[in-house]
Amino acid sequence: MNRAKLIERIKEANSYLCVGLDTDIEKIPAHLKEEEDPVFAFNKAIIDATLPYCVSYKINTAFYEAQGLKGWASLEKTVNYIPSSHFKIADAKRGDIGNTSTQYAIAFLRNMPFDSITVAPYMGEDSVKPFLQFKDKWAIVLGLTSNPGALDFEMKSLEGDDSRRLYEEVIRKVSTWGTTENLMFVVGATRSDEFIHLRKIAPDHFFLVPGVGAQGGSLEEISRKAMTKDVGILVNVSRDIIYASAGVDFAQQAGEKAKGYALEMANYLV
Amino acid sequence: MNRAKLIERIKEANSYLCVGLDTDIEKIPAHLKEEEDPVFAFNKAIIDATLPYCVSYKINTAFYEAQGLKGWASLEKTVNYIPSSHFKIADAKRGDIGNTSTQYAIAFLRNMPFDSITVAPYMGEDSVKPFLQFKDKWAIVLGLTSNPGALDFEMKSLEGDDSRRLYEEVIRKVSTWGTTENLMFVVGATRSDEFIHLRKIAPDHFFLVPGVGAQGGSLEEISRKAMTKDVGILVNVSRDIIYASAGVDFAQQAGEKAKGYALEMANYLV
Repeated sequence: MNRAKLIERIKEANSYLCVGLDTDIEKIPAHLKEEEDPVFAFNKAIIDATLPYCVSYKINTAFYEAQGLKGWASLEKTVNYIPSSHFKIADAKRGDIGNTSTQYAIAFLRNMPFDSITVAPYMGEDSVKPFLQFKDKWAIVLGLTSNPGALDFEMKSLEGDDSRRLYEEVIRKVSTWGTTENLMFVVGATRSDEFIHLRKIAPDHFFLVPGVGAQGGSLEEISRKAMTKDVGILVNVSRDIIYASAGVDFAQQAGEKAKGYALEMANYLV
Repeated sequence: MNRAKLIERIKEANSYLCVGLDTDIEKIPAHLKEEEDPVFAFNKAIIDATLPYCVSYKINTAFYEAQGLKGWASLEKTVNYIPSSHFKIADAKRGDIGNTSTQYAIAFLRNMPFDSITVAPYMGEDSVKPFLQFKDKWAIVLGLTSNPGALDFEMKSLEGDDSRRLYEEVIRKVSTWGTTENLMFVVGATRSDEFIHLRKIAPDHFFLVPGVGAQGGSLEEISRKAMTKDVGILVNVSRDIIYASAGVDFAQQAGEKAKGYALEMANYLV
């Protein structure tokens, strides 16, 4: 999906919600455990219920890999089930030397119908660029993450007159390797103090913003601070939506939660 | 495998060679393409031929993920085929917020018989610690990598009196989260200028050293500079061994190459 289409979809849906399918087999409702593929059965019901309220789905590969071969099958079925109207993110946080990153890019962006993959920047340019070579596909590079560990390295100041922090240098430098048509950055909602400053470094890039919901970030605050004329943000919510209920009404409750987020987002999209 | 056993195995084998199974289906000999699982058939033959000359195998997940479900099956078969005498590394470079890293740790260290997994440090403490919770299992954290992109962020100097570089701060800080019994670091052979300095920061940790062979690092130089009284290094060679020949003699030639590396290593192990 290209940038123009993504912006169009956000405006049509009046929502910039991304639903995170961090599907943990331990947490899905008991009645689904009888299904041949409980994880896919859960995801399918969640997708059906949330489709009108979101523009994107993010599949976190860790939860599928923890189920081995069966989990990888659930992942493939899930990404194939999501309609082409929705922006599909492989939240895989990959990154390796060039020839290896190329293999990851093939895995997610060519052999599966993901629109994008999250990428870890530590190893630098040749680890990121292979993800930028497919038309209308995106690398979503970690900038400033939502977790406590972001303070360990991402927030460290680098030597130099401007004492730029590592995450700022990552966003500044990675921006030069791609365009606003094939690069986004992950910026955690729990780091809202940084958003206005971040928009000076990357005024036009889309940000994928996790950390609303279970992690405590404020949707209002990040929307007010990070939204651009092209919207420029996708806000991900995972646990707060997909585990809204542990009963037979799990999908309906997930739909209600997603609708609630979308209605709030509509207020900020003016 | 615990540290004492790993050191014992290195001394028995008189080798600290790790064979990297970066098995690319495009590069395996034509006659194997008839097999039901060509990648596993290739790996099995390589393992059989190299077993006496190495102490470890490193499976690079990217090459398996690029083959989708079939690739994940090849990966599982391969790790299950490697005997318990050899230290098994999932070269996966994972790392995410705590609850997600836990899922990756379960995937590789509990549900598959890997002894270790490579971990990307960018996201900090809660992204690394979940990999340190399994007895006799290891996190191998990226320190200074062998690729050109290492200059982009890893080699940047941080603010402070000692102008420590990012990779030094990573090794220094990550060291405090685990022990020499459950933590190793990735240090590329192409960065041999840094090895003596690195041994001051991490005198006792094992280093996993990629970059010998196709990437041009010198086995002699890194062995002289980084070896400790407990050996303290595993040197990985991938392409130079596994693609030693593209003919029917591929496994025999791989065995010869591995034997050559082991013989050279025996000189440095005195």
